[in-house]
Amino acid sequence: MSLGNQLSPGMAQLIDLPVVTDPRGDLTFVEGGNHVPFDIARVYYLYNVPVDAERGGHAHRQLQQVVFALSGSFRLRVDDGKAREEYWLRDPRQGAFINRLIWREMDRFSQGAVCMVLASHPYDETDYIRDYDEFLQAAARARVR
Amino acid sequence: MSLGNQLSPGMAQLIDLPVVTDPRGDLTFVEGGNHVPFDIARVYYLYNVPVDAERGGHAHRQLQQVVFALSGSFRLRVDDGKAREEYWLRDPRQGAFINRLIWREMDRFSQGAVCMVLASHPYDETDYIRDYDEFLQAAARARVR
Repeated sequence: MSLGNQLSPGMAQLIDLPVVTDPRGDLTFVEGGNHVPFDIARVYYLYNVPVDAERGGHAHRQLQQVVFALSGSFRLRVDDGKAREEYWLRDPRQGAFINRLIWREMDRFSQGAVCMVLASHPYDETDYIRDYDEFLQAAARARVR
Repeated sequence: MSLGNQLSPGMAQLIDLPVVTDPRGDLTFVEGGNHVPFDIARVYYLYNVPVDAERGGHAHRQLQQVVFALSGSFRLRVDDGKAREEYWLRDPRQGAFINRLIWREMDRFSQGAVCMVLASHPYDETDYIRDYDEFLQAAARARVR
């Protein structure tokens, strides 16, 4: 598994995934530990999202994730405690890797958008940081280490 | 992991997944070894599928999969070598488990449909059975065992 070495610990990183094109439709595949830098413990997806909804608004202590727009589009904003970046996800062939200790927000969902996320661990509420000031402190401590 | 014990080795089995409903949209999650009876080695998805396309047309010797309609709908036809069944997938909260040695075909994709599949193993071309007569023989041998 070499991808992990290519990923810096900072902001979201776009991962271009393989596509098998065919007159019968396109197929994209993702293998844990190969195309994403972790084993896939959990898959979740957001749907029926109102176009004015905002999702996210938290960071994770340990969890790593890759976010995809499987249908439609949305905006992903990430923040490592020092700087912010934004990405528009609209291509099913491209995932955005979000490392630990990155605050993320998603909005501007298009009608019928589907956001799929591959996650490195099962759900664990204690891994969430939902308070932005607490996130800033944790990110600062991580930079000092 | 108890789900594996509930699944017979025959046709597709519908799995109802958890939903976290929220005014900001619905979220469904799937943990490997918990909601599906295997660790998730690979995720793939079909998109840009023409409405008259037919997908599938093969069986697997070992691979187990769960198929979802994350957007739109399609028909899943399964065949264990003795009988056939069909399912219409249209609800992101429901997955269809397909065991090894089940011939599957998918068609009647709606406009914009997205089919996501969770798979128990990485891609392996030698695991495919693409000839229907060869599938019937393999399924018959498996029933004798």
